[in-house]
Amino acid sequence: MAEAVPGGFFGARFSLYPMTDRYVPVILGAIDGLAASSLEIETDDVSTFLGGDRDTVFAALAETFGKAARSGEHVAMTVLLSHGCPGEEVCLTPNAAPAPPGPEKSGLVRSGVQVSCQWSLYPLGEPTYMERIDAAIARGRSDGVHAKGRHFVSHLSGDLADVLTTIRRSFDATCEQVGHVTAHLTIAANSPTRKGTS
Amino acid sequence: MAEAVPGGFFGARFSLYPMTDRYVPVILGAIDGLAASSLEIETDDVSTFLGGDRDTVFAALAETFGKAARSGEHVAMTVLLSHGCPGEEVCLTPNAAPAPPGPEKSGLVRSGVQVSCQWSLYPLGEPTYMERIDAAIARGRSDGVHAKGRHFVSHLSGDLADVLTTIRRSFDATCEQVGHVTAHLTIAANSPTRKGTS
Repeated sequence: MAEAVPGGFFGARFSLYPMTDRYVPVILGAIDGLAASSLEIETDDVSTFLGGDRDTVFAALAETFGKAARSGEHVAMTVLLSHGCPGEEVCLTPNAAPAPPGPEKSGLVRSGVQVSCQWSLYPLGEPTYMERIDAAIARGRSDGVHAKGRHFVSHLSGDLADVLTTIRRSFDATCEQVGHVTAHLTIAANSPTRKGTS
Repeated sequence: MAEAVPGGFFGARFSLYPMTDRYVPVILGAIDGLAASSLEIETDDVSTFLGGDRDTVFAALAETFGKAARSGEHVAMTVLLSHGCPGEEVCLTPNAAPAPPGPEKSGLVRSGVQVSCQWSLYPLGEPTYMERIDAAIARGRSDGVHAKGRHFVSHLSGDLADVLTTIRRSFDATCEQVGHVTAHLTIAANSPTRKGTS
């Protein structure tokens, strides 16, 4: 059920994939700080939901992936960001007026972890959605993290913090205009096949 | 650039994640039939794009994940389905009239692989998008693969072929009504923590 949350309902659903026999300890080591956070956390056999304050959610995502990548293993993480609707079963806010997310109170610290990331932005119920997507692509370019446009996704590369910051700002800017917005990210590090990203 | 494709542009972008030191041979073994298919294939360090006939794309996705899961390793696969727009850089069809995808010519064969899957459907540029999403949720229930509604996703479980068939039919039915449709799937098998799915 939807709750009255200042700035509108916001949450993330992520999965972490370490490509190693040690995937369980790598995952447990990466998420060891989550339980002590202020976030609502719900884990199942496919993914983990994080609900709560945007700064805290983005910091948790950055910390989780950063820790996993520093294991040195080839790791990937997928993230679904969603603003404005807790869905699946109940959406109380289709076509709702935008509930601006509020200002970014704290930024991410440069991580030293180089990532390759593909992402897609979905402003929902919005006839002019392509304008919002175009603005996000433009921000990736002006922020210097845009690597390449590909079918269905923007390919970004750079420091984990820089890539997540560009995505967060594009996402938040879209939420200023649209009541229900989602985005999907795939972030990878330590890939043995760094090709096709330039 | 967009091409004139009967039924509208359609493609999938997938990533396969075997959680094992042997991830390279598991991936290579899973995709060994792709090169001989009729599909357009483009691989980078984050994902692989498949373009072409819908039956062939879904069969390729099922075969790839099925082979990977039969390795016995804990494996996950993410898939982005997209109809109507080759994007990222250029979308020639925003708000276009629906280009129906045409009938399903061949179905998927029961795989024997049990999967847990979370997915989200995005009918874009469509004010009544929640009605389409509700129809997809209803189909999951009537097909017997709906396990649980969660924040932002539907959680399905069952045989790989049954789960993919329900998703494909929901996706195609949405394309009958909406010009630009995407969906994101996360499919997992052999998880050591099968919890929270019922």
